[in-house]
Amino acid sequence: MASEVAEEWAQDTFKLNPNDEDIHTANERRLKELIGETAGKLHTGRSRNDQVVTDLRLWMRQNCWTLSALLWGLIRTMVDRAEAERDILFPGYTHLQRAQPIRWSHWILSHAVALTRDSERLLEVQKRINVLPLGSGAIAGNPLGVDRELLRAELNFGAITLNSMDATSERDFVAEFLFWASLCMTHLSRMAEDLILYSTKEFSFVQLSDAYSTGSSLMPQKKNPDSLELIRSKAGRVFGRCAGLLMTLKGLPSTYNKDLQEDKEAVFEVSDTMSAVLQVATGIISTLQIHPENMARALSPDMLATDLAYYLVRKGMPFRQAHEASGKAVFMAETKGVALNQLSLQELQTISPLFSGDVSHVWDYGHSVEQYAALGGTARSSVDWQISQVRALLRAQQA
Amino acid sequence: MASEVAEEWAQDTFKLNPNDEDIHTANERRLKELIGETAGKLHTGRSRNDQVVTDLRLWMRQNCWTLSALLWGLIRTMVDRAEAERDILFPGYTHLQRAQPIRWSHWILSHAVALTRDSERLLEVQKRINVLPLGSGAIAGNPLGVDRELLRAELNFGAITLNSMDATSERDFVAEFLFWASLCMTHLSRMAEDLILYSTKEFSFVQLSDAYSTGSSLMPQKKNPDSLELIRSKAGRVFGRCAGLLMTLKGLPSTYNKDLQEDKEAVFEVSDTMSAVLQVATGIISTLQIHPENMARALSPDMLATDLAYYLVRKGMPFRQAHEASGKAVFMAETKGVALNQLSLQELQTISPLFSGDVSHVWDYGHSVEQYAALGGTARSSVDWQISQVRALLRAQQA
Amino acid sequence: MASEVAEEWAQDTFKLNPNDEDIHTANERRLKELIGETAGKLHTGRSRNDQVVTDLRLWMRQNCWTLSALLWGLIRTMVDRAEAERDILFPGYTHLQRAQPIRWSHWILSHAVALTRDSERLLEVQKRINVLPLGSGAIAGNPLGVDRELLRAELNFGAITLNSMDATSERDFVAEFLFWASLCMTHLSRMAEDLILYSTKEFSFVQLSDAYSTGSSLMPQKKNPDSLELIRSKAGRVFGRCAGLLMTLKGLPSTYNKDLQEDKEAVFEVSDTMSAVLQVATGIISTLQIHPENMARALSPDMLATDLAYYLVRKGMPFRQAHEASGKAVFMAETKGVALNQLSLQELQTISPLFSGDVSHVWDYGHSVEQYAALGGTARSSVDWQISQVRALLRAQQA
Amino acid sequence: MASEVAEEWAQDTFKLNPNDEDIHTANERRLKELIGETAGKLHTGRSRNDQVVTDLRLWMRQNCWTLSALLWGLIRTMVDRAEAERDILFPGYTHLQRAQPIRWSHWILSHAVALTRDSERLLEVQKRINVLPLGSGAIAGNPLGVDRELLRAELNFGAITLNSMDATSERDFVAEFLFWASLCMTHLSRMAEDLILYSTKEFSFVQLSDAYSTGSSLMPQKKNPDSLELIRSKAGRVFGRCAGLLMTLKGLPSTYNKDLQEDKEAVFEVSDTMSAVLQVATGIISTLQIHPENMARALSPDMLATDLAYYLVRKGMPFRQAHEASGKAVFMAETKGVALNQLSLQELQTISPLFSGDVSHVWDYGHSVEQYAALGGTARSSVDWQISQVRALLRAQQA
Repeated sequence: MASEVAEEWAQDTFKLNPNDEDIHTANERRLKELIGETAGKLHTGRSRNDQVVTDLRLWMRQNCWTLSALLWGLIRTMVDRAEAERDILFPGYTHLQRAQPIRWSHWILSHAVALTRDSERLLEVQKRINVLPLGSGAIAGNPLGVDRELLRAELNFGAITLNSMDATSERDFVAEFLFWASLCMTHLSRMAEDLILYSTKEFSFVQLSDAYSTGSSLMPQKKNPDSLELIRSKAGRVFGRCAGLLMTLKGLPSTYNKDLQEDKEAVFEVSDTMSAVLQVATGIISTLQIHPENMARALSPDMLATDLAYYLVRKGMPFRQAHEASGKAVFMAETKGVALNQLSLQELQTISPLFSGDVSHVWDYGHSVEQYAALGGTARSSVDWQISQVRALLRAQQA
Repeated sequence: MASEVAEEWAQDTFKLNPNDEDIHTANERRLKELIGETAGKLHTGRSRNDQVVTDLRLWMRQNCWTLSALLWGLIRTMVDRAEAERDILFPGYTHLQRAQPIRWSHWILSHAVALTRDSERLLEVQKRINVLPLGSGAIAGNPLGVDRELLRAELNFGAITLNSMDATSERDFVAEFLFWASLCMTHLSRMAEDLILYSTKEFSFVQLSDAYSTGSSLMPQKKNPDSLELIRSKAGRVFGRCAGLLMTLKGLPSTYNKDLQEDKEAVFEVSDTMSAVLQVATGIISTLQIHPENMARALSPDMLATDLAYYLVRKGMPFRQAHEASGKAVFMAETKGVALNQLSLQELQTISPLFSGDVSHVWDYGHSVEQYAALGGTARSSVDWQISQVRALLRAQQA
Repeated sequence: MASEVAEEWAQDTFKLNPNDEDIHTANERRLKELIGETAGKLHTGRSRNDQVVTDLRLWMRQNCWTLSALLWGLIRTMVDRAEAERDILFPGYTHLQRAQPIRWSHWILSHAVALTRDSERLLEVQKRINVLPLGSGAIAGNPLGVDRELLRAELNFGAITLNSMDATSERDFVAEFLFWASLCMTHLSRMAEDLILYSTKEFSFVQLSDAYSTGSSLMPQKKNPDSLELIRSKAGRVFGRCAGLLMTLKGLPSTYNKDLQEDKEAVFEVSDTMSAVLQVATGIISTLQIHPENMARALSPDMLATDLAYYLVRKGMPFRQAHEASGKAVFMAETKGVALNQLSLQELQTISPLFSGDVSHVWDYGHSVEQYAALGGTARSSVDWQISQVRALLRAQQA
Repeated sequence: MASEVAEEWAQDTFKLNPNDEDIHTANERRLKELIGETAGKLHTGRSRNDQVVTDLRLWMRQNCWTLSALLWGLIRTMVDRAEAERDILFPGYTHLQRAQPIRWSHWILSHAVALTRDSERLLEVQKRINVLPLGSGAIAGNPLGVDRELLRAELNFGAITLNSMDATSERDFVAEFLFWASLCMTHLSRMAEDLILYSTKEFSFVQLSDAYSTGSSLMPQKKNPDSLELIRSKAGRVFGRCAGLLMTLKGLPSTYNKDLQEDKEAVFEVSDTMSAVLQVATGIISTLQIHPENMARALSPDMLATDLAYYLVRKGMPFRQAHEASGKAVFMAETKGVALNQLSLQELQTISPLFSGDVSHVWDYGHSVEQYAALGGTARSSVDWQISQVRALLRAQQA
């Protein structure tokens, strides 16, 4: 008969009654209609306190798999794109100032790598979600000799909770989930910020597809990166939920208090937000148009000043002096109003006699990036290594 | 000569120079004084961006071991106390209303169990702290073929970072640490709240030792639980640091920005706070005086109403009806102005004919708690199981 | 015809069209159906950027009046109750330790007075809400010579915004509203905490009416203060929204960005929460049952130790010495195992010769509270003064 | 003799004693050394609870004036600059996309106007800081007939607190101050973000003076906007303190609890941060170099598309159709690969016959901005109006 009730839910024919206090009493009431007073046995050895937290864990367990899959999908999309476009160079920025030439793929991977930490963390959160509190009663435990290990096995949980008072009132797994989402959103907000900048007229490195941008009610020429702005903004909302829950928990007396009821709306809203954001981000990345020629045009010889210093280092000069020498060259070029690579060899040699004809290689952006071949750098071999590392991580996480 | 500089630091004889920009330039300047221009090689292939984050990870790695040890010490103190005092009963509360009799040890363990999740999480955070960014340069990586795996092995890190842009600018491990501390403090704030209540005149279950309480400048009769209040309050401060860092990270462009400098003060302050709080909490628990007679006096027969229902359940009545029957008994006792256990058998039998002479066992608090023998419950066997489980966890974590 | 559209909204007969982007385009589309292309003039000199913020200000302006009225209603209920019950004494606590006897009304007023600051602040927020941004366009202003002062007068705003870029993108009034709500909820959470404590078995000072408490699915004897716990918990949720918005605003580039869209859900949710909480709080206070006999029983002579010191001060002893003398009396009573007021005059005189027969007045709780007659104290005259002050404030605020 | 103690403090010769619990007991101890036991009268009718909050209010009252003065100084610097540079045009952005030409001064004023709300709010906070709690004792009030109105007048407070329980334990004025700082920092973080963007190579609108930027340890060509990044980041730290305090206050029982001790560090740190940030911001603005030629170069004809629509509106076309017509022109220009202003009159007339020779005025940026003459717009007259309005506000606030 319990299966009949389940069927009604599945068919969406279950009729709620205004007197049903919650899902558990509704099920019991319906069962009673079907089989009489025996239905009253349903609540035996149970309490709303342990049931409600079991329900939430069941829901979140399933939901986290969905989010994991979406997150893996996003990372895969990024890695695929990184692999396809790894010969495109553009400026790397620190402090938003042009720093050194890097591969476009290196930028993509910098965000993909951050997201792999999120997927790793989500697995850890899931491990702590997947612990069964059922059999804790309201506070003291279960007095009817229920076999909690059997319940665990049947409901496919990884472990059982250790203490009934803690089990019914701890919401660590909720707080952890909300913080997981907050940190993941922080990553996405940083990627969104980059892409918003890169899609300005001034940078013009990328262009959002029409599906992810919108027009203006007043300015016909505009295409606004609304989708990216919404991703950026949601970081605030999601963290707000995390902050709210922590504040609700602070100083709460032991065991169940009604305050804990705040957990569910937070979980549902954040889950919905994460699901939407991860899908939108995947869509943005997979449809983003890039402008390699603008990227190339944004590279400038002064971004090779560090390489110029390294040139001298390779000739034996201590780095500190080489850095100074390179700085002098930058200053000389600025003073003369020419690009750094337009200084003549003679001019360079007034700065250091170590400069010789082979300095011309320094001015090749392709040559520049290939130098950064240590693991994690922007050389092609390292980018390939990163791609294989992230793919291996994904395979391991999905196992 | 580098070892001479190290020695100066160790002897506290290293003299800082007003022109030293930071620790790295100070060391290089000192080395230059000792060995000349060759010292300028020290910065080769390095950048402040990867150095500063390596420094922070080194510091935090060590600090987290200290905090782990303090946390384990606190848990051990609690478990030892739980073992020693497991025959003491007192009221369990939900919604701060007296609910059911429980063992005092069950309460202690409810908080100890929460803290084992914190120690588990701290190990996970440490794993992500222990990843080496050195060799990432400022953004593009290292161009001099540095062997990052060798650096990792020498500096005893667990892994190397995958992407140089991410490596120099991600502060996940800081955010995770701050959140770890926030959640741990939330647990301690809840324990502190309980103990503040239990040490009121009205509850009078426990008394803080003089070392952890203070007097009043106006009211000579008072002893205030200052130490517990400070623990409770620090939950706010620590979470504030977490909130602050997340807000700082939100929407930040890729790679290093000076904004990231906010990380260190947050880490230092929170580390200091956690260290102090964990030690104070250990001191409070180990010196706390309890009043078993007041605890016993606070148990009242109405707290056995659930057991009365279970009595009927054992006689075959569905729980829902038994809950109602027990509720009728509570009401009858209230109406007659007597305690629940003073209703006569005849009176109980007007509610249900299933009541018989053996109902008298229900009114024994010791008998009550022993019923809750399912794992996680308040029976002695379950409390012993909890103690052994927590001890096994600690051993596993310390391995 | 615009009035016909308005009528349709009023009658709830306005039919939305899937292509309507928002309320403004829906209205224009409907007007076009009624009057043709001329409807296209509706958007002249306007932008969604200035319209949407005008809408929000209109909505919040009205909503804040509703919230003000609810808040005033709550304060009035508290003051009325304070006036009616001002002869009831009970223990005042600091650090949750019994401190000094106070009037029950003094406690009520302590919370009412806090709420008057909230109502004062809400008026200030309303002043800043009530500023008209219309006529700012998307960013540059209005090019058709619109008379913004006329618009202001017609829409009954207090002022116009000064700068079009700021006007369309500042959300100070939203942040201020959310913080206003957070601080108000903090006050209510503290009052709720007190009442939860006072309704425990251990304190037994108050009892919630059945409408504001609920039973247990497992424990038939229980009455849980759910309404108070929900109030306490909402402080977290509301502040979470404030934190979320601030984080969204942090580092946002100038002028309108889609991120700002996060403002509305926050405002709506917090407004609904505040409206519900203020009404529930009013209901709780107006139906709360108090137990004056339990309150009286909780007063104990040691709470008069401060008064004992003041007795000596009145006899000319410096306070510091009097505090010590009183402390000695407390210690002597504890040592002898008697109440402080059971020390004989001879015993007291061993502590100080200034004690004489009139010390017996000190032991009268009614006499104690009457001493605290300076403004703000717990004497009857001061409580009456507080009541009149709060009533005068309400009258001034409502004007 | 009290003046002698004060003198010692002033001369910095006051010697603290390890046994001094706090400033109040230190003063009393010193006075006792000077005048004997009579010094014990100093604490008469006082309590640390009301003293410490009085001290904090005194400190904050003075500090807020300092911060107000710094804030006014910053606003004045901005307004002066806006006045001096009001003939410089540059692109206005929404969603970081080029939107319409605006005056550079209009941008400056958009941030200055936001800051005037901060200075207005600070005055309101100061009003609530300037309320005297002295005479509230620890909880019950003052029993010695102290004239609190006299104290108020002597200490130059604006009002006295109404209820002694509230007075010693409310920290609204602290929370308000921290939130004031958070919102002000949010404004400054948005201005900093703009300036960081404007100082990128890609925008090149502004250049920080050397005093407010720093070099790179690795990249000799770089100048990083560290000062702006630090301002942006501090928004997180300051708000973290606000979040921390609110969380500490949440659910705290009535009256003084040690938790409140968290207030002071938050106030001191935030005050220091605000003082530094306001001075740095003033320095940045007053020394910022602008590149008017780059600003002019960044204006492009497509930013006049809105004006093109308004041109048609002025000829009688409903805005909605005009917006569409202008959109068609944008599309036509894109398709033909020409700038919008290079479409011939004939081409424009294929879109609408309302186009005639005077359309050429539309392409004049100076003419464009002058159209936005409604109050708050970017026309010169409106910018002048804004300047006079802000100056009048400052005068009123400083009065």
